[in-house]
Amino acid sequence: MKFYNVDFEPVGKRGKCRDDESLLNCIRRLGICIVSLCAGVGKCHGCKVQILRGSVSESTSNERQSFSSQELKDGYRLACQTYVASDCQVHIPLESLTTPQRIQVEGQEVSVDREPAVSSCHIQASPPSLSDLQADDERLIETLNHQYNLHCNTIDINVLRKNLPLLRSWNWEAQVSLRDQEVIAINPWPSHQLGLAIDVGTTKIVGYLLDLSSGQTLAAEGTMNPQINYGEDIASRITYAMESPARAIKLQQVVVEVLNNLVTNLSNETGTKSEEILEAVMVGNTAMHHLLLHLSIEGLAASPFVPAVRKALNIKARDIGLGIAPGAYVHLLPNIAGFVGADHVAMLLATKGIWKYKDLAIAIDIGTNTEISLIHNEQISSVSCASGPAFEGAHIKDGMRAANGAIERLQLINDQISYETIGEVPPVGLCGSGILDAVAQLYLAGIVSKDGRIGIHPRVRTHEKQREFVLISEEERISSPAITITQKDVREIQLAKGAIRSGIKVLLQERGYSEKEIKKVIIAGAFGSYVNMRSAVDIGMLPSLPLDHFQQVGNAAGIGAKLALLSISRRAEAQAIAHRASYVELAAAPHFQEIFLQATYLG
Amino acid sequence: MKFYNVDFEPVGKRGKCRDDESLLNCIRRLGICIVSLCAGVGKCHGCKVQILRGSVSESTSNERQSFSSQELKDGYRLACQTYVASDCQVHIPLESLTTPQRIQVEGQEVSVDREPAVSSCHIQASPPSLSDLQADDERLIETLNHQYNLHCNTIDINVLRKNLPLLRSWNWEAQVSLRDQEVIAINPWPSHQLGLAIDVGTTKIVGYLLDLSSGQTLAAEGTMNPQINYGEDIASRITYAMESPARAIKLQQVVVEVLNNLVTNLSNETGTKSEEILEAVMVGNTAMHHLLLHLSIEGLAASPFVPAVRKALNIKARDIGLGIAPGAYVHLLPNIAGFVGADHVAMLLATKGIWKYKDLAIAIDIGTNTEISLIHNEQISSVSCASGPAFEGAHIKDGMRAANGAIERLQLINDQISYETIGEVPPVGLCGSGILDAVAQLYLAGIVSKDGRIGIHPRVRTHEKQREFVLISEEERISSPAITITQKDVREIQLAKGAIRSGIKVLLQERGYSEKEIKKVIIAGAFGSYVNMRSAVDIGMLPSLPLDHFQQVGNAAGIGAKLALLSISRRAEAQAIAHRASYVELAAAPHFQEIFLQATYLG
Repeated sequence: MKFYNVDFEPVGKRGKCRDDESLLNCIRRLGICIVSLCAGVGKCHGCKVQILRGSVSESTSNERQSFSSQELKDGYRLACQTYVASDCQVHIPLESLTTPQRIQVEGQEVSVDREPAVSSCHIQASPPSLSDLQADDERLIETLNHQYNLHCNTIDINVLRKNLPLLRSWNWEAQVSLRDQEVIAINPWPSHQLGLAIDVGTTKIVGYLLDLSSGQTLAAEGTMNPQINYGEDIASRITYAMESPARAIKLQQVVVEVLNNLVTNLSNETGTKSEEILEAVMVGNTAMHHLLLHLSIEGLAASPFVPAVRKALNIKARDIGLGIAPGAYVHLLPNIAGFVGADHVAMLLATKGIWKYKDLAIAIDIGTNTEISLIHNEQISSVSCASGPAFEGAHIKDGMRAANGAIERLQLINDQISYETIGEVPPVGLCGSGILDAVAQLYLAGIVSKDGRIGIHPRVRTHEKQREFVLISEEERISSPAITITQKDVREIQLAKGAIRSGIKVLLQERGYSEKEIKKVIIAGAFGSYVNMRSAVDIGMLPSLPLDHFQQVGNAAGIGAKLALLSISRRAEAQAIAHRASYVELAAAPHFQEIFLQATYLG
Repeated sequence: MKFYNVDFEPVGKRGKCRDDESLLNCIRRLGICIVSLCAGVGKCHGCKVQILRGSVSESTSNERQSFSSQELKDGYRLACQTYVASDCQVHIPLESLTTPQRIQVEGQEVSVDREPAVSSCHIQASPPSLSDLQADDERLIETLNHQYNLHCNTIDINVLRKNLPLLRSWNWEAQVSLRDQEVIAINPWPSHQLGLAIDVGTTKIVGYLLDLSSGQTLAAEGTMNPQINYGEDIASRITYAMESPARAIKLQQVVVEVLNNLVTNLSNETGTKSEEILEAVMVGNTAMHHLLLHLSIEGLAASPFVPAVRKALNIKARDIGLGIAPGAYVHLLPNIAGFVGADHVAMLLATKGIWKYKDLAIAIDIGTNTEISLIHNEQISSVSCASGPAFEGAHIKDGMRAANGAIERLQLINDQISYETIGEVPPVGLCGSGILDAVAQLYLAGIVSKDGRIGIHPRVRTHEKQREFVLISEEERISSPAITITQKDVREIQLAKGAIRSGIKVLLQERGYSEKEIKKVIIAGAFGSYVNMRSAVDIGMLPSLPLDHFQQVGNAAGIGAKLALLSISRRAEAQAIAHRASYVELAAAPHFQEIFLQATYLG
């Protein structure tokens, strides 16, 4: 019996692995939450890993069935079938991790050369006296320019108001933060140099607090978008906001309130101060962007759906009421079109170089609204599809958000249901990836037909005048109603997946390509990063391509926001992306209705 | 009998004058309000005019006594002694006009090459359509840049919010206003291009609405500074503001409220809109400047009296709550020191080239606080003296502000009092210039001694334990108390004039000059422009120099603000003035107490 050192990426854990235990066993022993539905017998494909370095056992027949030859060549293995034979480095793809572990991983570092828009300097000035009557503003600026050979000439008015008077109590020693030639904060020396990256989603708002000097993510926090109370999707919020100016203001205020709470929580959690946050970057879809800034959404309400603002913006945080450093700016990445926003730009930015891809690639950000870009030869075409909230668990009988107790993975093996829940607690309902798995499994087992009808099966029953497939019966749950997939649920999934697939088809048609020519499919978004690619292909949400063509990149919009926060070159890159992207209006595409109908079929 | 055409400057009136009527007669016939106390017998010197062009009668012996030979050479005459002999052009100096007429004249044009910070362009864009999905912001900017070959890249966030959505209702035709490369307003085409110049005085706030395209002053309005309710002078307001943050905010809010009312009134009066005001320039002393901007006044409260901000500022109007064009800026001229503010810089700016004077000049801005600059060889030294509110009529028994019924000129001829009141109504009290005249006349008549004591005289009586000189008795006023000058009044004037004179002396001492070397004395400020120079010299408020060395320039701070509004070169000039000015602390000057005591003596 031997022990080897194994490093697991990207979770960043190292452990000793015995040569006679499976890699799956070792991973679980280390507390890494990996998906496994088949009890480690090589059937569920959940525990996919990639061997980056080191020797391991030969692949088994189960694995040779599961993986393409390219994948096998790239080192892909099922952890339950693999035994180490030397020190190893192993990559666990995001999709093999359970939700809580993934969220943790997604808070990880981003790798970028740091060129933040804001830089900080330590200064020590001499105090005024009867023989040195220099005014406070000039004293600060001259000390700064002299010590650092700068040409700074402006101090933000709020800094003059709030920070400048504090210099006396700090004996004229301070940390001065500059953006271009403007002083945007003065803090005691030493202070943190923090930045805030925020992804304002239709459903969820996620904030990341970063250390600008190290690039490290210090904390992350997600919260619901409170605008949900005024409309579940974009269209209903636009309608709400257009009813009266007061309502538009309300929609802005509730978001800003949540953002300020987020700032407070992130600061408290890290023992830092909100005044140490020197810059913020925000991304969101065009409607969220416009509502947050209190821009007119009139153009988004009717054809030709033109946004008020497309360009990247640099505005004072105070101009949206965000309480960070007194002179700090908020940078907003550019939008592409009325329904392809800055979050999609951020996603493309986060996916290294995808926007310059020469071969044919597709990048998809799945959400209530799904944005898809086709990239070829450095050209970008984008569409937006109303995929609806089904993937978030809404409008599904037993659907729920990705929270504890949600079934996130599901398999039907010999008419038996195996599943995993978030938090490994008894099941409460199904989140998006679980619903997709369920529909895919029912389709593959022939219980649901190509056109989506639920057929006859011992687990199928009729309840309230519609058929439903019982995943977990009343008896199995003990004094709770059964968890089922209803005929209506299947229809909802068909509409949602049809929207996405037809978006892909229109883009390809518009540029004269076929699905087979696609070399890479990037999947981002909260749901997109948890979904089982195989299920997504099985039901025909995505084109039938080798699984190794798909790459799940997690909350790429948030990562893009972080990159833009840490690097002004990345901001310039985002501008270039928005500039190259041309928008394709789905509704105006030839034969769109036909394409959409076709795309709703399963398989 | 012949008629000649006579043009009167700067009031801008033309009239026919008979060869057998005095110029004074003609002036009055035309409704120009000129000072005259001696009923036109050549004794009071009030009706001083300057013949710029044309022939007039020979000067009389009265005039040869009144004027220096230089003044006579320069065409100075008493209007009551002068008869025209050809068409003429006559200048009526500000000091010869009564108050209401002067205020009217001061609203006049300023002459400067127009280079405003903001420029406006007419654009016509094409509306969006299904085949032209360009976003509103890019549509505007590209049209603008293309039509005018510009490189504009930024639209203010408030303009995006408030103006951009209106383009649709204007069929995409608009007037776009730019400051540097930033769009700061979008108005319907055609709109006015207006600017606002504001002089925030300790006592009075005066606003001027200018047409930026013509340079014309469209309207002017003065109002009390509402901070008076929280402290009459600067020191008491600083004390008030330092008592609590809420009080400092209060002081700011009341001023901004008044400024917004001023904007509304000026707009209503001229039939324009506040959104057409594209830029504002504000001047005020350092304390008013700091309180308006809500900057810390801690530095102004204690030695060494260092201001928080000395540099010129460009801040968004919204950052002080001023309601003009949505993206407009307020420009604040630089301060010189804790008690020599932007209003003094504006005054030096308004007095053409005085700040570059090679010979020795003194520029004085008289107010509750009096700022004095000594200029020589392009160098500027400045002091600030607490001259108090006596010249505004405060702390004087029968003192009052310069309003209707105030005695503004007064003469004692053979123990008889002659006087003129503002508005030519029965006397109610004395305003600053009247008080100064009274003390000077009593001193010249030997009724008040050099050290300020009131002596024996038929009109001197003792009332409430102090001596007082009865200017107008109870009998003369009918059922009103007498108007008198009390011993205490004389003391107040001594303190006030002593403060000013000692300021001049310290500046001269500091630079090694004597009073005799002064070649020019510029007097500005509300009181300074109405005061009788002869009286000011007689009591020793000002050095004994030939009267033609003195020049009264009216509300020069307001004119300086207008100049800075109309021309960015003048802003640069203001920067140069502040940069060259060095501050001299009176309290730190050698032998200051002695100099001050000496300066309180009359004569």
